[in-house]
Amino acid sequence: MDLASLLSWHGRISRELDAVVDFWLQHSHDEEYGGFFTCLGQDGKVYDDLKYVWLQGRQVWMYSRLYRKVPRFRRPELLQAARAGGEFLLAHARVAPPSQKCAFVLTRDGRPVKIQRTIFSECFYVLGLDELGRATGEPRYQREALAMMEAIVHWVREDPSELGRPLLAGAIPHDSMAVPMMLLNLVDQLSEGDAEAASRFSELGGWSAQRILMHVQRDGAAVLENVSEEGEALPGCLGRQQNPGHAIEAGWFLLRYAQRQQDSDLVAQAVEKFMKEPFRLGWDPEHGGLFAFQDVDGLCPTQLEWKMKLWWPHTEAMIAFLMGFAETRDQELLERFVQVAKYAFAKFSDPQEGEWFGYLTQEGKVALTIKGGPFKGCFHVPRALCICEEILESLVRETQLTSQG
Amino acid sequence: MDLASLLSWHGRISRELDAVVDFWLQHSHDEEYGGFFTCLGQDGKVYDDLKYVWLQGRQVWMYSRLYRKVPRFRRPELLQAARAGGEFLLAHARVAPPSQKCAFVLTRDGRPVKIQRTIFSECFYVLGLDELGRATGEPRYQREALAMMEAIVHWVREDPSELGRPLLAGAIPHDSMAVPMMLLNLVDQLSEGDAEAASRFSELGGWSAQRILMHVQRDGAAVLENVSEEGEALPGCLGRQQNPGHAIEAGWFLLRYAQRQQDSDLVAQAVEKFMKEPFRLGWDPEHGGLFAFQDVDGLCPTQLEWKMKLWWPHTEAMIAFLMGFAETRDQELLERFVQVAKYAFAKFSDPQEGEWFGYLTQEGKVALTIKGGPFKGCFHVPRALCICEEILESLVRETQLTSQG
Repeated sequence: MDLASLLSWHGRISRELDAVVDFWLQHSHDEEYGGFFTCLGQDGKVYDDLKYVWLQGRQVWMYSRLYRKVPRFRRPELLQAARAGGEFLLAHARVAPPSQKCAFVLTRDGRPVKIQRTIFSECFYVLGLDELGRATGEPRYQREALAMMEAIVHWVREDPSELGRPLLAGAIPHDSMAVPMMLLNLVDQLSEGDAEAASRFSELGGWSAQRILMHVQRDGAAVLENVSEEGEALPGCLGRQQNPGHAIEAGWFLLRYAQRQQDSDLVAQAVEKFMKEPFRLGWDPEHGGLFAFQDVDGLCPTQLEWKMKLWWPHTEAMIAFLMGFAETRDQELLERFVQVAKYAFAKFSDPQEGEWFGYLTQEGKVALTIKGGPFKGCFHVPRALCICEEILESLVRETQLTSQG
Repeated sequence: MDLASLLSWHGRISRELDAVVDFWLQHSHDEEYGGFFTCLGQDGKVYDDLKYVWLQGRQVWMYSRLYRKVPRFRRPELLQAARAGGEFLLAHARVAPPSQKCAFVLTRDGRPVKIQRTIFSECFYVLGLDELGRATGEPRYQREALAMMEAIVHWVREDPSELGRPLLAGAIPHDSMAVPMMLLNLVDQLSEGDAEAASRFSELGGWSAQRILMHVQRDGAAVLENVSEEGEALPGCLGRQQNPGHAIEAGWFLLRYAQRQQDSDLVAQAVEKFMKEPFRLGWDPEHGGLFAFQDVDGLCPTQLEWKMKLWWPHTEAMIAFLMGFAETRDQELLERFVQVAKYAFAKFSDPQEGEWFGYLTQEGKVALTIKGGPFKGCFHVPRALCICEEILESLVRETQLTSQG
């Protein structure tokens, strides 16, 4: 890509990030109870005031990260809202302390509505509070994050009983790729610039990366969402399930890990198995966009939305392909980045009201006009724009130096 | 409708019922373990061998009902398969006897995979076993059904703790319309031709009907899926949720109840509030078909499939409008029946391979090619065809008598 194209994408992505952050600043803050409204209509109007813990933790992370890393977002209002979100989580997310188990969704004032028997509310609690600790410089947030991280690791690797899932004779124990992905993401978060934490979580990082790699199946031709604890294929829909956006997201998690480990073999695996191949299989040749779910044998998935185009596989693909290109200089990856980014800007972005739509039909028509909901908040879109902006910046700088040199 | 049209619809529906029953007879029987495969592809091929308890109970009911009520289906193979399904349920559905709590899904050989913290697996267990008892004449099936019914009523009206739902401070206790609908349906099933059972369940029938009527909200203009225990509207998405197919299904449940009670006011309410109005609001003016979900205030629902066209709202609407017409002779209802039946035959029915597709896009294109899955089995389609066939038969007979008279 020439300098003009790089500069053009950089500008477009920066402007989009500004508009997206503005949307959340304007519409999502709960000034009364702290935390964030995330059920927002096309124009940002709150259509439900429930607070999903995943999305509270994610927005705390996003605001704190922007504040800490991007000079133009070092604004008191971001840090103040992040802090109010963090305090809301500290006060309300855990359902019955001293247990670390968190609710999945809370009322506006913080009373628990539902609990999921998984680790993800807790993971986003860690993500948000660790970054808030870094942004504010207050160690108590990171202490809380570390205590929660210990509980999560205990549930995953030693004893899941506190999660409340019944042990059933017919349930096949299996590794859902989301779990090691989430752990690898948290290891990355907790280890940044902290040699002690990096050493403490080094074994967990390696374990998580290995668990993710177990999901490469069919002689390397496919990434499957669920495999046995020993890395074997499973029968039925569960065993055949593919999620191209998820595989590609795992790709950039692995790539970052490989970069830190200076493991060039893992770089290649991340790019080939988790980016290029899932894209080849998962991109809709007829209408463009990534399918939400697929069956590795080409059978019809049972998820009603399998053909729909969801926003987050596309944001993750933008990150993965640009990060992959910056690492390898493989032109195919840059072409994929441009292909996905063009589709996303054309179809998901809402230039009128800001932020992105989340759910399109197979044909690319807006199916749900909401900007936020139970699973979409201030996270995937600004995270992708922020990471892509940073990578493009360094590519532009490098190109300028080369052309001057 | 003139005699020729009635006869034509009757013939079309009878032939369709034959084809649908053939599909399940041919593809769904597990000769080894008993019970039914319900995860069937377009051509009937089994793509997963998990056994969903809802669908096991429903197919036992459907086969037994056809055997008992429709002379051409009084075939040993139906009764034998129904019995094998009933025995499978008796042997495996309950997770930890003496508790009556059933699994949601079992392995092919009957080991529990998942448990839902609701009453529906148990309700379809009752439905199937009661009808099997009637078809076989063996009272032990009905005894099991009645024992389960007692547990369900206890959970709903006295103490839900055995269901395993945690009591959470922010969860609003509410009446989900599915619960009284299911109970009213079971009262209808258990009371048929049985004066003792009719008397025993008479109060429960009245209570269930009243609970369903609480869902008429907005000064009678809307049926809402969730209301408070006192029949008040609830805030948020939960409170605004509408499901036109579900309202219409409740309509024919109420209509049958009103017929038995000889309650003409309730007949009128069932027709106006639960059939005509939900149809007016729920029918897609652009592409035809009933929406899966709506928001009573016209906001965007958060269900990804809200605009999709699912098979079962259409089968329920066929029953409701034809039953409503037979009761009231209101021509509008007959027109609606024809409108829905034409759409359903054109879009859902698969003349090549038999049975109906279950999931269409808003535009009416097949979105999932499966014929059965975790929520679609041998139930809504043959039930609707069977009930409509019976009503059309009596309308034809009546018209013939009139024209001869």
